[in-house]
Amino acid sequence: MEHLVRYKELVTFTHRVFLGMGCSEQDAALASEVLISADLRGIDSHGVARLSGYLRLWEAGRINPTPQVKIVHESPSTAVVDGDSGLGLVVAPKAMQIAIEKARQAGTGWVSVKNSNHFGIAGYHAMMALAHDMIGMSMTNASPLVAPTFATERMLGTNPIAVAIPAGQQPPYVADFATTTAANGKLEILQRKGTDAPIGWIQDKTGNDTVNPHELKNGGALLPLGSDREHGSHKGYCLGSVVDIFSAVLSGANYGPWVPPFVSFLPLPADPVGQGIGHFFGAMRIDAFRSAEEFKQHMDNWIGRFRSAKAVEGKSVLIPGDPEREMQAGRIHNGIPLLTPVLEDLKAVGAKLNVQFPEHVEIS
Amino acid sequence: MEHLVRYKELVTFTHRVFLGMGCSEQDAALASEVLISADLRGIDSHGVARLSGYLRLWEAGRINPTPQVKIVHESPSTAVVDGDSGLGLVVAPKAMQIAIEKARQAGTGWVSVKNSNHFGIAGYHAMMALAHDMIGMSMTNASPLVAPTFATERMLGTNPIAVAIPAGQQPPYVADFATTTAANGKLEILQRKGTDAPIGWIQDKTGNDTVNPHELKNGGALLPLGSDREHGSHKGYCLGSVVDIFSAVLSGANYGPWVPPFVSFLPLPADPVGQGIGHFFGAMRIDAFRSAEEFKQHMDNWIGRFRSAKAVEGKSVLIPGDPEREMQAGRIHNGIPLLTPVLEDLKAVGAKLNVQFPEHVEIS
Repeated sequence: MEHLVRYKELVTFTHRVFLGMGCSEQDAALASEVLISADLRGIDSHGVARLSGYLRLWEAGRINPTPQVKIVHESPSTAVVDGDSGLGLVVAPKAMQIAIEKARQAGTGWVSVKNSNHFGIAGYHAMMALAHDMIGMSMTNASPLVAPTFATERMLGTNPIAVAIPAGQQPPYVADFATTTAANGKLEILQRKGTDAPIGWIQDKTGNDTVNPHELKNGGALLPLGSDREHGSHKGYCLGSVVDIFSAVLSGANYGPWVPPFVSFLPLPADPVGQGIGHFFGAMRIDAFRSAEEFKQHMDNWIGRFRSAKAVEGKSVLIPGDPEREMQAGRIHNGIPLLTPVLEDLKAVGAKLNVQFPEHVEIS
Repeated sequence: MEHLVRYKELVTFTHRVFLGMGCSEQDAALASEVLISADLRGIDSHGVARLSGYLRLWEAGRINPTPQVKIVHESPSTAVVDGDSGLGLVVAPKAMQIAIEKARQAGTGWVSVKNSNHFGIAGYHAMMALAHDMIGMSMTNASPLVAPTFATERMLGTNPIAVAIPAGQQPPYVADFATTTAANGKLEILQRKGTDAPIGWIQDKTGNDTVNPHELKNGGALLPLGSDREHGSHKGYCLGSVVDIFSAVLSGANYGPWVPPFVSFLPLPADPVGQGIGHFFGAMRIDAFRSAEEFKQHMDNWIGRFRSAKAVEGKSVLIPGDPEREMQAGRIHNGIPLLTPVLEDLKAVGAKLNVQFPEHVEIS
């Protein structure tokens, strides 16, 4: 069953929950905006459905509600930021802001972050650059759930990459994707529904194809983008590992199988190689390359030409960011749908911290 | 049939061919080293087999043998370089050198290039950063052969990405891959052999699956990494389009379907939107993030852990760059194998420019 909650009321609820964990007014506002941006954009797996996960991390003492996010190393165009075990939802936008400030001075800014936690959707942080006529980039490592090509062991996270590029008359280009064939959120949906997964999304613990979405909890693994060697899974493995190295080996966070898992069914590694999880952010000032006006005219031309490309019957070519933008326009107006288990979970979170869950209506 | 030619003699032959086109001694030496690095690393489709293609471009007046490669716009960490219609094999390493010099001063360097041509393998340029304790990145747009998700039109090139990351005791990490399920070179091999392609590599002109590798020349298209929507082809489309935008919209080169094709079966677009094809290079100084020594120790640990990950029976987990490094070690010693049609093609190139093809032995 699904229930509809108003966007603003969901933000307010989430804000109060973060206040209840001891976050400052400002940090709680930022964290709730970042978290609910996932629900707005239709990436339900990364939004308010994770609030109870953050609460569990906080209860386990793995989140510092009052972090001192600071630069520990820098050059004119780079910085390493220590997130002080803060919510990734707070650490990430602060680090992206540093990348933007570096880019203002040096043309580009690149920030690698250690000692952080799950940062919500990568796209939010990358899109922060758009208002400054900059290209934004954002990536993070994550709980080890992915087997590299030929491996039977879970070594990498779904390690997403987001790139946001400003345009002129057209809406911006916003790519935001896991470097696996299917994001973990999509698998969770199948697990809840009890439906089979397509071949190529997961393998079982011996490395064989499986369609059973529950095999992931039984020693199986998600597959890198490409699914198998013949279809380029070694390229997805390259992408996931570059994200891991930029986010964590550059910063001093945990990498590969040492990443402290967000999900509750995996234990914490006993022998950390760094601090927390890692992120990587980039900002490139357009006019450090060419006039922003010229660039945007050509982006409009690029977007227009791709959108009008000949397409298979009944389909059209989308520009990255189109589906999420349409989803956001609808949900900001109509409200955000929550499944019953998510709703119940959120009510339990609210009850723990004395926060009333907002009004909602059953829609199906 | 295959024939074996000594590495150094193949470089000398290629060097003389470029001299014959009117390149300077220095440029001809650089271009031949870059081109044959592909054969050394086992990426035969991008090596000496393309020499006749460069000759055809030169004959068509599309290559300037004496380019003035210059910076036309810059900031502390960025530059746009005009390749002056030079060989990409010359323009690209010069632009990467500029990225490295920027990184020395500003921590990172990012160079977008217009007015260039095919640059050989992306990995060569990215690897230039390694000797400077920097991470190197390299990408390029290319002849439109790829259909975005749902399209029946060829809008993008195979747009490769290379990332080279230094390690300590371990050899460096070097990822170098097309953002399509299969590189065009792999399809060319199937076309020559008359063998079927796996489902997921190409579509026919109506957007349906096909295993016939010749469909590419019949209005069909290569598919983005992921192959179809269910397996994440929209992510491969994102990757290919980001490469296109960074390489060409940032620099002022041609993008998307306007990229002037290298292959002879496609006509030149009548309405260019920029100059030549575009590349994008990056260099990040490791010690702009943390001590290079510390970083390399952790990279050694990363590489060691991934290499020893549990694997499926009879396989092992590879580190990006492993197969190419092993190939290079063998070929530098044993020589470079050339198929009979490639050999004949090269002899014809030599005959045109009065350059004797070196000794070679038949091996199969």
